Amino acid sequence: MQKLLPEEIEKRSFEIITKELGGILLDEEQAFVMKRVIHTTADFDYVENLCFSEDVVKKMQEAIRNGACIVTDTQMAKAGINKKELSKYGGEVFCFMGDEDVAAKAKEKGSTRAAASMEKAAVLEKEVIFAVGNAPTALMRLHELMQEGVVFPKGIIGVPVGFVNVVEAKEMILKAEVPYIVARGRKGGSNVAAAICNALLYGMKHRV
Amino acid sequence: MQKLLPEEIEKRSFEIITKELGGILLDEEQAFVMKRVIHTTADFDYVENLCFSEDVVKKMQEAIRNGACIVTDTQMAKAGINKKELSKYGGEVFCFMGDEDVAAKAKEKGSTRAAASMEKAAVLEKEVIFAVGNAPTALMRLHELMQEGVVFPKGIIGVPVGFVNVVEAKEMILKAEVPYIVARGRKGGSNVAAAICNALLYGMKHRV
Repeated sequence: MQKLLPEEIEKRSFEIITKELGGILLDEEQAFVMKRVIHTTADFDYVENLCFSEDVVKKMQEAIRNGACIVTDTQMAKAGINKKELSKYGGEVFCFMGDEDVAAKAKEKGSTRAAASMEKAAVLEKEVIFAVGNAPTALMRLHELMQEGVVFPKGIIGVPVGFVNVVEAKEMILKAEVPYIVARGRKGGSNVAAAICNALLYGMKHRV
Repeated sequence: MQKLLPEEIEKRSFEIITKELGGILLDEEQAFVMKRVIHTTADFDYVENLCFSEDVVKKMQEAIRNGACIVTDTQMAKAGINKKELSKYGGEVFCFMGDEDVAAKAKEKGSTRAAASMEKAAVLEKEVIFAVGNAPTALMRLHELMQEGVVFPKGIIGVPVGFVNVVEAKEMILKAEVPYIVARGRKGGSNVAAAICNALLYGMKHRV
């Protein structure tokens, strides 16, 4: 086994991923995101699954550069996003899933905490990129709030994972008028959500 | 789309997973872990990848019941593990990756923080299950510490993800004298590590 430091392992890993992707033609900015997702999952299915709206990487990076925050639906994604890097531009990461007012509102309305946490995020007086890695109900409620004109996301990272309502919720976002990065199908997760956020952030370092 | 609450979605999801697994013969306790990993990743490759040492689920659950702690190599896994459930038996989750003494030791020795964090965990005066979801160097150092007789894990969840040294590090654990759950090959991740820990915990609720 080779004795390598983390930064060397990461470099070597991306070389292997690039090699195994072979001749697949990818927009450079999309490739940067795609490779980080594959690095995080070792799952090349994302080559087929990941869908990008036009110029989404540039648009989301521009929003971050202007101080946009990231709202996510899991503590795991929050833990995984590079908050130090985001804070350089003035942004923060929020996850309202554990908040008592969110739990109370979900109970009162017979909805989910994920949906209630999107409602809480919708009234933040901040520009927001939403990173949904777990709950299809978060995506569904977010879509409703957009249709009602209550929220105008700077972008949606729509990568919940699962078997019930997940595929459908993602298809709704794919049809919406919003910059999106969506993992079509069942796959995704908090790790994928965090990886995409970090890819946006790390991509900015080279282009500031 | 169906209007379902999270617990209904989870129930329905496990029904779908069970159905799609079809007639695959699985030990009941292993199946409980396997299904939760598939639920977390939507990736049926884990049917082939996940390796269990003999009676490992029972052994790890017994350790937890006796107050064992969980040490993990990522903040994401720590965020994902059900700490409330673990605390019922007296256990805690530790992740030393962000600790200053760990960073200093890694720098001094030219090793990784992941390796140094395993050294810190090795001298905890507690019974420990290790849950490695990210760094192969954590698994490699842990293996060395076991061989040196410095640490005697109650179990190892060895599911780092990646392209460099990951496969090899996992094979070392598969040959070691320790109760293990290992995701053979490249796949794994903090989400998988957390899912396995939670499967152990949720499996205990029905069997206390």
